[in-house]
Amino acid sequence: MSSLAHPVVEFTSSSSWAMVEDKFSPYGKETLAKLVKFIKEEVLPAERIAHAQIPTDPEARWKVIVPAIEDLKAKAKKLGLWNLFLSQRHYPKHGVPLTNLEYAVMAEVLGRGGHMASEAVNCAAPDTGNMEVLARYGSPEQQKKWLEPLLRGETRSAFAMTERFVSSSDATNIRTSIRQEGNEIVINGHKWWISNAGDPRCVLHLVLGKSDANNSDRYQQQSIVIVPANAPGVKIVRPMRVFGYDDAPEGHCEIIYDNVRVPLENLVLGWGKGFEIIQGRLGPGRIHHCMRSIGSAQLALDLMIQRVTDPSRKTFGKYLHEHGTVVSDIAKSVAEIESARLLVLSAAQQIDKFQAKGAMREIAIAKVRDHLDVLRDFIRLIFYVKFVVPSMALQVVDRAIQAYGAEGVSQDQPLAYAWAGLRTLRLADGPDAVHIQQVGQRELKRAPVLAARTAEIRKREKQLVELYGIKGEL
Amino acid sequence: MSSLAHPVVEFTSSSSWAMVEDKFSPYGKETLAKLVKFIKEEVLPAERIAHAQIPTDPEARWKVIVPAIEDLKAKAKKLGLWNLFLSQRHYPKHGVPLTNLEYAVMAEVLGRGGHMASEAVNCAAPDTGNMEVLARYGSPEQQKKWLEPLLRGETRSAFAMTERFVSSSDATNIRTSIRQEGNEIVINGHKWWISNAGDPRCVLHLVLGKSDANNSDRYQQQSIVIVPANAPGVKIVRPMRVFGYDDAPEGHCEIIYDNVRVPLENLVLGWGKGFEIIQGRLGPGRIHHCMRSIGSAQLALDLMIQRVTDPSRKTFGKYLHEHGTVVSDIAKSVAEIESARLLVLSAAQQIDKFQAKGAMREIAIAKVRDHLDVLRDFIRLIFYVKFVVPSMALQVVDRAIQAYGAEGVSQDQPLAYAWAGLRTLRLADGPDAVHIQQVGQRELKRAPVLAARTAEIRKREKQLVELYGIKGEL
Amino acid sequence: MSSLAHPVVEFTSSSSWAMVEDKFSPYGKETLAKLVKFIKEEVLPAERIAHAQIPTDPEARWKVIVPAIEDLKAKAKKLGLWNLFLSQRHYPKHGVPLTNLEYAVMAEVLGRGGHMASEAVNCAAPDTGNMEVLARYGSPEQQKKWLEPLLRGETRSAFAMTERFVSSSDATNIRTSIRQEGNEIVINGHKWWISNAGDPRCVLHLVLGKSDANNSDRYQQQSIVIVPANAPGVKIVRPMRVFGYDDAPEGHCEIIYDNVRVPLENLVLGWGKGFEIIQGRLGPGRIHHCMRSIGSAQLALDLMIQRVTDPSRKTFGKYLHEHGTVVSDIAKSVAEIESARLLVLSAAQQIDKFQAKGAMREIAIAKVRDHLDVLRDFIRLIFYVKFVVPSMALQVVDRAIQAYGAEGVSQDQPLAYAWAGLRTLRLADGPDAVHIQQVGQRELKRAPVLAARTAEIRKREKQLVELYGIKGEL
Amino acid sequence: MSSLAHPVVEFTSSSSWAMVEDKFSPYGKETLAKLVKFIKEEVLPAERIAHAQIPTDPEARWKVIVPAIEDLKAKAKKLGLWNLFLSQRHYPKHGVPLTNLEYAVMAEVLGRGGHMASEAVNCAAPDTGNMEVLARYGSPEQQKKWLEPLLRGETRSAFAMTERFVSSSDATNIRTSIRQEGNEIVINGHKWWISNAGDPRCVLHLVLGKSDANNSDRYQQQSIVIVPANAPGVKIVRPMRVFGYDDAPEGHCEIIYDNVRVPLENLVLGWGKGFEIIQGRLGPGRIHHCMRSIGSAQLALDLMIQRVTDPSRKTFGKYLHEHGTVVSDIAKSVAEIESARLLVLSAAQQIDKFQAKGAMREIAIAKVRDHLDVLRDFIRLIFYVKFVVPSMALQVVDRAIQAYGAEGVSQDQPLAYAWAGLRTLRLADGPDAVHIQQVGQRELKRAPVLAARTAEIRKREKQLVELYGIKGEL
Repeated sequence: MSSLAHPVVEFTSSSSWAMVEDKFSPYGKETLAKLVKFIKEEVLPAERIAHAQIPTDPEARWKVIVPAIEDLKAKAKKLGLWNLFLSQRHYPKHGVPLTNLEYAVMAEVLGRGGHMASEAVNCAAPDTGNMEVLARYGSPEQQKKWLEPLLRGETRSAFAMTERFVSSSDATNIRTSIRQEGNEIVINGHKWWISNAGDPRCVLHLVLGKSDANNSDRYQQQSIVIVPANAPGVKIVRPMRVFGYDDAPEGHCEIIYDNVRVPLENLVLGWGKGFEIIQGRLGPGRIHHCMRSIGSAQLALDLMIQRVTDPSRKTFGKYLHEHGTVVSDIAKSVAEIESARLLVLSAAQQIDKFQAKGAMREIAIAKVRDHLDVLRDFIRLIFYVKFVVPSMALQVVDRAIQAYGAEGVSQDQPLAYAWAGLRTLRLADGPDAVHIQQVGQRELKRAPVLAARTAEIRKREKQLVELYGIKGEL
Repeated sequence: MSSLAHPVVEFTSSSSWAMVEDKFSPYGKETLAKLVKFIKEEVLPAERIAHAQIPTDPEARWKVIVPAIEDLKAKAKKLGLWNLFLSQRHYPKHGVPLTNLEYAVMAEVLGRGGHMASEAVNCAAPDTGNMEVLARYGSPEQQKKWLEPLLRGETRSAFAMTERFVSSSDATNIRTSIRQEGNEIVINGHKWWISNAGDPRCVLHLVLGKSDANNSDRYQQQSIVIVPANAPGVKIVRPMRVFGYDDAPEGHCEIIYDNVRVPLENLVLGWGKGFEIIQGRLGPGRIHHCMRSIGSAQLALDLMIQRVTDPSRKTFGKYLHEHGTVVSDIAKSVAEIESARLLVLSAAQQIDKFQAKGAMREIAIAKVRDHLDVLRDFIRLIFYVKFVVPSMALQVVDRAIQAYGAEGVSQDQPLAYAWAGLRTLRLADGPDAVHIQQVGQRELKRAPVLAARTAEIRKREKQLVELYGIKGEL
Repeated sequence: MSSLAHPVVEFTSSSSWAMVEDKFSPYGKETLAKLVKFIKEEVLPAERIAHAQIPTDPEARWKVIVPAIEDLKAKAKKLGLWNLFLSQRHYPKHGVPLTNLEYAVMAEVLGRGGHMASEAVNCAAPDTGNMEVLARYGSPEQQKKWLEPLLRGETRSAFAMTERFVSSSDATNIRTSIRQEGNEIVINGHKWWISNAGDPRCVLHLVLGKSDANNSDRYQQQSIVIVPANAPGVKIVRPMRVFGYDDAPEGHCEIIYDNVRVPLENLVLGWGKGFEIIQGRLGPGRIHHCMRSIGSAQLALDLMIQRVTDPSRKTFGKYLHEHGTVVSDIAKSVAEIESARLLVLSAAQQIDKFQAKGAMREIAIAKVRDHLDVLRDFIRLIFYVKFVVPSMALQVVDRAIQAYGAEGVSQDQPLAYAWAGLRTLRLADGPDAVHIQQVGQRELKRAPVLAARTAEIRKREKQLVELYGIKGEL
Repeated sequence: MSSLAHPVVEFTSSSSWAMVEDKFSPYGKETLAKLVKFIKEEVLPAERIAHAQIPTDPEARWKVIVPAIEDLKAKAKKLGLWNLFLSQRHYPKHGVPLTNLEYAVMAEVLGRGGHMASEAVNCAAPDTGNMEVLARYGSPEQQKKWLEPLLRGETRSAFAMTERFVSSSDATNIRTSIRQEGNEIVINGHKWWISNAGDPRCVLHLVLGKSDANNSDRYQQQSIVIVPANAPGVKIVRPMRVFGYDDAPEGHCEIIYDNVRVPLENLVLGWGKGFEIIQGRLGPGRIHHCMRSIGSAQLALDLMIQRVTDPSRKTFGKYLHEHGTVVSDIAKSVAEIESARLLVLSAAQQIDKFQAKGAMREIAIAKVRDHLDVLRDFIRLIFYVKFVVPSMALQVVDRAIQAYGAEGVSQDQPLAYAWAGLRTLRLADGPDAVHIQQVGQRELKRAPVLAARTAEIRKREKQLVELYGIKGEL
């Protein structure tokens, strides 16, 4: 079964591989095989080591640079497993020749490899999105100063969008102000859930705020500026916790920008370009988030299988899998993971097809507003992944927790921590409800086509009624 | 968007087409396009006509040959849309050059086309499975007498396996006896749920029974014989009803075989080959059943969208889709249908890969028992489709019923009838629970691989503990 | 365990009985015991007999008066098990001294007794609601002519509200016109789903229509008139089917009222009183519908237990209950049934308390509009039962169907028929979504109270902050 | 509406109060009213204060005695709101005159009051169960030394049952050894998840272990001893975390008992009595756990309502409750909470009835083994609450988290912490699966009664077949 025997099948599934294999380039296949080997032989053994290297002291844990991770990064770079998220198609200078689909399969492998696999290959959010923004929209000076160290994995970065006291899923609610004063930009705002901002290596924040709150076009009100993490007025208030976890050293920080001043050249792309930038940042990123989540679910299922077949865990003379609904839970989990995996892969493939046809480029020469409309319509098409995958993964992880008993909710297994992280995905980048509405609304737009088809059918039916001489109501 | 614009996208989805398009041959694509056109322009308009041509009289409705369907069959044959289920790879003489994957996509289109689309292109169960059995295992004489009229769509056939008073999902419970007496075979048994047996065109029953009940190999106890529908002793007791429906004229009959005698040449393949035959019959057939179910679900969703956007159905001044959870229900349905579709398509693709590697042939030269074991293990791998798809489709249809109110449960919409048919799929060919157990048990077999990998990781982890000088429990 | 040993426990549960026992009068307890005995010894044995007495001929089945049911009615009347739904509190002349709670427990027993138990004790819908309307609002002449034969069980009646081509869950959509011409009332309209109208004993229809479509008070636009079933212009178009069932002889008919003329004295209560009448008709009736549904669910569970413990249904050497998730399904069903039962019983008890305080009477002297508002608000409070119970019962019945295999969907078990009936309850008297919205909206009204409480807590908290000298944000 | 207007209705529901009001004594009603007032006016305002008084320093947080809680305890004692869990019926000396049902209603109020309400009235687990054990089984000396300070709220206690590396839901897997050496008892074992053991006020552990591992009666192998928290050899290894929470200062500790020696008089009840003691400890305690969980769910729903009606949280010009499925989620939550509440209350009522009939006492004079069998059978009857309630509460809390967005998973709302606590309830005292199996198995025992009833019905049916002259199969 040579074709089913690609190493990735060990971490994903043979049926999904059967669907995508012929869409991989030789480079894609080779890189994938190297990645699987790296995760198995280097990343997974280092996971608990890295955790042990983070101090428990509440101050020190925010200052550490974890040796085990740094060593992994060096190895990955040497192997060419680096910045895999950055597609050469869009970023000819810095990118790798991988399609969305190819990287999507790799993203699952990263998710399968635990919480630090992505960082080990310099593919961790929010750095990935930030690097894409700087690579696409940054000036040569911004790229030299901020992007290149990020691409080398020497620094880290934050993306400051979400605000406290405000429902920022509606971007018009944003209150942070960004205004020009002479050659400087002045930023005032109150953000929270700013990931990475706690990290000692974090040197920049991309801050979104309103620069023109009264612009009648609500897509033109916002701008993004680069704020050095150590600029005067950047006050980290506290780390937010997720189900008790602080995620040190990266963290998710509450930050007040209090009259922070940066030079004018720190503006990204131009005044009023904030909305355009965040739209471009959202699409493929969600695909990869989802694939990592599927990796988490697959990991949980593997752990569950190990537990329920463990002879030392027998009760009343039987294996755990011989009790109750365990086998059924496992079967359902397999099917749910595989369904979700195929759903996300098909979305990635569709993005690739869409982009291959130059659709993006053509659109780019039209007005920004139209561009965004087409883009958003396309995004709606595929973003059921956003409300399907995290819920699915939460369910699978929850079943694994149940199989592990109290140990499942504790620090001794990665399950509770994975669950907490997945739970936030149902809220981040817009809560489930937003995506559900968008997918549903888009579907309703099919109504006229359906009505027209029905009319055609009824017309032809009428002819048949006469032909066959049918009496009475059909 | 030329590549997304294949006509099938109207009845399925652009993201699934993006995944499978490059796996279609030119013949496959062309046939698919023809089929979509035929369904839209011929089959759907004839649906209610055909229904009206079935008398309500309790006797007459079992004797009718429906003119509208016969006319469709003539048109389909002319168009080359005929016996699409029969793959040339296995049936060089009678088959068409389509892969499992290609036919799977077509099977959804058939399901989308209502309950008679399959019959219109001579792809209706149980005839399909019976034709496969006769094409693969039948003697030249059997093929000439029984298979060829079936292939031409002139006759119909039944498969008599399920027995009353017995849990026949465990084949060892079968009680029907098949024994040789001189040059004849004598059959005695009590079957029910024998589909097609009510049809005036049904000329043969393939009857499964025990010919060697004491054989120590339980896979060798059973045989299959061809019983002419009009043989003396074949007593049709009554039609079984499914949620009140009798499915006339085909029906699902209770039948007593009372000392039925057939010539010895009516034995199929040989004594004791019954189990082998039914195994071969089950695999791909389920795939196609599932794809038809997905077509039903898609049809229900389309109907739901039409209803909730219908201005004449406003209540309290709002469209139905502006109330409650309608949009959310639609969004979930889209995602569930698409997930299931991809799951089944990937299973079909995997069968194609498996077969392409000649795996089936190699196995065939090994002992039958081994053959069956490999085959069943492979089938387990992909048969989560069997417990996923019907439940999914039932849920989508149920939501559509709810959108239609009382009309949804009535004869005025196809929804209640579709629901009842889908409900039986959770019971037919083994209830959900059997498939859930098989998938779960197969998954448990991964335990040793997982344990070995964990051992490897722990070993390497130990080296890292020393390398970094970590103290205490990890 | 004498107190747990009331015979009703056999058909319901000991824990619900523990909750309600002390709320039963001696008469209530005695009647309940008699009813349980009657159901077991008379009704259940007659169930399949009665079914067999309904002809299969499509004409004859609408003309039969079923002997087995008539005999049961005679026995029930003799035993004093008659018109149990009609509370003496409201109908001193015709009623029985039972509370809503007491009758609710009996309604479950009726549901447990199969589809004809209610008719056997003259408690079948829609006659029950119609008798209540006539007893409460009918003139003495109307009562003498139409109510008394109904109370004696000699005639049957229909309630004609639902209209074809219209979303009649919004009553302002009603199109049937009711207008006075001299001493006559003329009715024109197109109704469907009119239960009982097919029955040869059905002598009257209560027809709802618009008599004053332009009245600015939308609660005053409608009136109800008594239409004799044999009045000229009453055209029964066809029976509607529920899934495949026609429910002969009662049926659910499509009816056209074509210039039907009735004498002026057939107006019920007065012009413009239609809305008030249907409001009064809906409340407790739903409670009893729900309890009957719970009886259906309990019946299905009992059947499931019998099947999965049946030694003749073993597969692979094990009882059905030793496979898969059967035990888990049963445990969940027990808990779901019991939860739903307590929910409905507590709603019934609350209606009793509400009525006991004379609330209804006091309200009655206020303006009708206020009356309706209070009543509807109260109804909202308890009508989660309407969206909880049918869904729960459907789920339990569906599990039982699964346990029975194909037999479960057939005419050989009462499960498929019960399922179809329960499915319509999610649509009748307003679809689930309406009730969900009403309960949710009512709950939102608690917001000001919650906000005030939170404000109080924050105020006191502030004092404590000072008292303890807490620094920083809490 | 005086009778509906009891203050408890603000924290529970009027329909549940309608069911139980007449089962409350005047003392019960008065105490309940006092408790509601105390929770609103004292406990809720102190909640965040108490949290702020727990240091963040990883050492100091295990040594604190929280002033705000101590002050609440003093107030509660003065008000007579103290040891409400301890029923006078069983503990005439120390108990209060409350039934299980009365205390169950109060337990919901405690759950509604946040995580420290129970401690404020000295009703916090595991102290409650430990006090019951010492009150029922302790010697006068044990009661004087260990029970009385607990009853006064001066000390705290732990219950050491769960073991690391072992599935201790099967008690025969317990490995801790308890053996006599002269006048001493020597304990060796490895426990974890020992709640309260981190608290500086914790002075005793009740330790379960095997004292007679080879006894053929597995209910006689185990014993319980009182171990002073400061005994040499008691080694607290680490706090276990639940998701990311450590629950300091109480904690859930991993503990090694390393040759711990205690005097012989520390044995509770006698050698081999361990199993009997833990059985008695489990029953009503679960009821109260469940009611507290319902209080948590109700709190979450109240918070959700406040959020979705908050004008400052509007998005796209609409309140949150005007979006998507929010109203539907709230309606479902109301119904689910109320169903679960009634389920638990009816279980409590049934325990009261069972005990009132002296059943417990009569049983007590029979052999211990029989006692346990009857007791466990009874417990099975009502313990669907254990698998229904935590799952329900988790779902409601999860919906509330979703309404709060990222804030919902953070330390700024009590929701994530409540969720984590509820999640452990699906594992504690036996995982869901154990309870599901027990309830299901008990239900299967009804099979013979059902079969006998069916036989009776068939017998009578046969008579009717003859009477009416029915032909053919029914």
